[in-house]
Amino acid sequence: MSDSSLPGRALPPDAAAIQAAAARIAPHIRRTPLLRLAAADLGTPCDVTLKLELLQAAGSFKPRGAFNRMLSHPLPAAGVIAASGGNHGAAVAYAARALGVKAEIFVPEITGPAKLARIRAYGATLVQGGATYNEARDASESRAAGTGALIVHAYDQPEVLAGQGTLAMELEEDAPELTHILVATGGGGLIGGMAAWYGERAEVVSVEPEGCPTLFTALREGAPVPAPVGGVAADSLGARQVGGLMFEVARRNIGTALLVPDAAILAAQKTLWDVCRLVAEPGGATALAALLCGAFVPPPGARVGVVVCGANTDPASLA
Amino acid sequence: MSDSSLPGRALPPDAAAIQAAAARIAPHIRRTPLLRLAAADLGTPCDVTLKLELLQAAGSFKPRGAFNRMLSHPLPAAGVIAASGGNHGAAVAYAARALGVKAEIFVPEITGPAKLARIRAYGATLVQGGATYNEARDASESRAAGTGALIVHAYDQPEVLAGQGTLAMELEEDAPELTHILVATGGGGLIGGMAAWYGERAEVVSVEPEGCPTLFTALREGAPVPAPVGGVAADSLGARQVGGLMFEVARRNIGTALLVPDAAILAAQKTLWDVCRLVAEPGGATALAALLCGAFVPPPGARVGVVVCGANTDPASLA
Repeated sequence: MSDSSLPGRALPPDAAAIQAAAARIAPHIRRTPLLRLAAADLGTPCDVTLKLELLQAAGSFKPRGAFNRMLSHPLPAAGVIAASGGNHGAAVAYAARALGVKAEIFVPEITGPAKLARIRAYGATLVQGGATYNEARDASESRAAGTGALIVHAYDQPEVLAGQGTLAMELEEDAPELTHILVATGGGGLIGGMAAWYGERAEVVSVEPEGCPTLFTALREGAPVPAPVGGVAADSLGARQVGGLMFEVARRNIGTALLVPDAAILAAQKTLWDVCRLVAEPGGATALAALLCGAFVPPPGARVGVVVCGANTDPASLA
Repeated sequence: MSDSSLPGRALPPDAAAIQAAAARIAPHIRRTPLLRLAAADLGTPCDVTLKLELLQAAGSFKPRGAFNRMLSHPLPAAGVIAASGGNHGAAVAYAARALGVKAEIFVPEITGPAKLARIRAYGATLVQGGATYNEARDASESRAAGTGALIVHAYDQPEVLAGQGTLAMELEEDAPELTHILVATGGGGLIGGMAAWYGERAEVVSVEPEGCPTLFTALREGAPVPAPVGGVAADSLGARQVGGLMFEVARRNIGTALLVPDAAILAAQKTLWDVCRLVAEPGGATALAALLCGAFVPPPGARVGVVVCGANTDPASLA
């Protein structure tokens, strides 16, 4: 980490690492489409381009990083192990099934039934316990020390960051006009990878629930530090603190870290269904919430993209 | 109609009419994206390209035809009137709100609460009665004779066919490699417009529920004739017979009219959610059902597209 923070050095992951990840994972992931909406359509202050990453395999962006990690290392007989609020666990379980290895997934008590069902459906061994993601992570690391399974971290490994960065590479290829990209932050793997890709070519804006202000707090304190974990999106954005790798990217490449209230997240989720017939989970609707509730005010001439990053929820919650 | 069926004459709508429609409606509709899926992803016999028309404004393809009809005529003070199983009614209500005119929508008793709520939410006057679409259509025509409102037919008007044909124009631009396109048929406006666009450049395949075999029956009998109306997709595909305009297109340009059982439609709906996190209504999942259940067997080398055409359902039905 220390080398990478020297002035002028490329931060990990660099463009070459992200391009290599894209080639590596291409057989396994979907190139998710865009939906371009007029301002009047969604009631936003400007036109908006949605990146429909909720249509990704396993229902979130997470397979990008999981596959890149797992395809970059020999896979031990003990398989892979991961801790997750749910989406990363579903992605690792999905990738393990695709690659023919065992997966053991540790999730906290707050993980909802839709995510648990996905993990089980992909054939992984599921271990639920602990109040939040951090407790599940500690348990998974103890277990991995015993089994020798490959740890696939939810956000703080270079291969994971590079894998998530492929989302930005696709987005820039398909929508090169974008000047601002709104991304939800939990542990920061997605936004870290994306900000590393974009560098100064676009402003990557972090959006977090008021209940889980990990990057907001880290940028204020000048270091990854623990933050509260709560609210409607805690099972996808409820990392206790951002990763060290992403923080090095964030303090150079992420200018704005916004917070939105739970009510705005739930309203954005409802708008996505009412206006677009998209079912996003709360964490998946969090970035859009900033535009809808006014937390993000696009500067004149901005061309705004929003990543809708996950759909692992019970669709009945929208009824 | 008689002129258009002469050998060698272009059938309505011709390419110019569809291109004109596309320009006319562009400010009001969404260019819906594609989702390209590997065969293993969905469990289909070949790769498949989904046209995500369920993300269209008002939740189905219907605004294309509705806007084209309404923008091709002076709109009377009495506004517009339409009969519909629900999706066309929602589209006309949506278009009327956008264009600032009144709308009166007639729907049958089988129209479900999700569609009724949409029509009301767009501000239209809703009249529910009669067992099926045909009774609602008769009632709407009697009413229009009294009020002078512009009738926006659900499928059997040239402007409506041309509007629906714009979906094929977009699809061919975005996926020129497709050789076979599966489309659900109710009254036949969508598939008629699409088959008119494609001509012999691709095979447009009709898929209908066994319970609503309108085109299947018409092609067998050599004329649009009444067919049964029933099953899980009756509120979107339950026209009693195909339109005369589309039938002229169909008997030249639609080679295959397949039937699928309700169980296959419900299974396709579940697959779209489980694998892609897409919420389609039964009629919106009907075309894909033919590929999943084996009713459509792609010939070697086929490049298959599937239109997922509607999402006006209660998402809780997937839970």
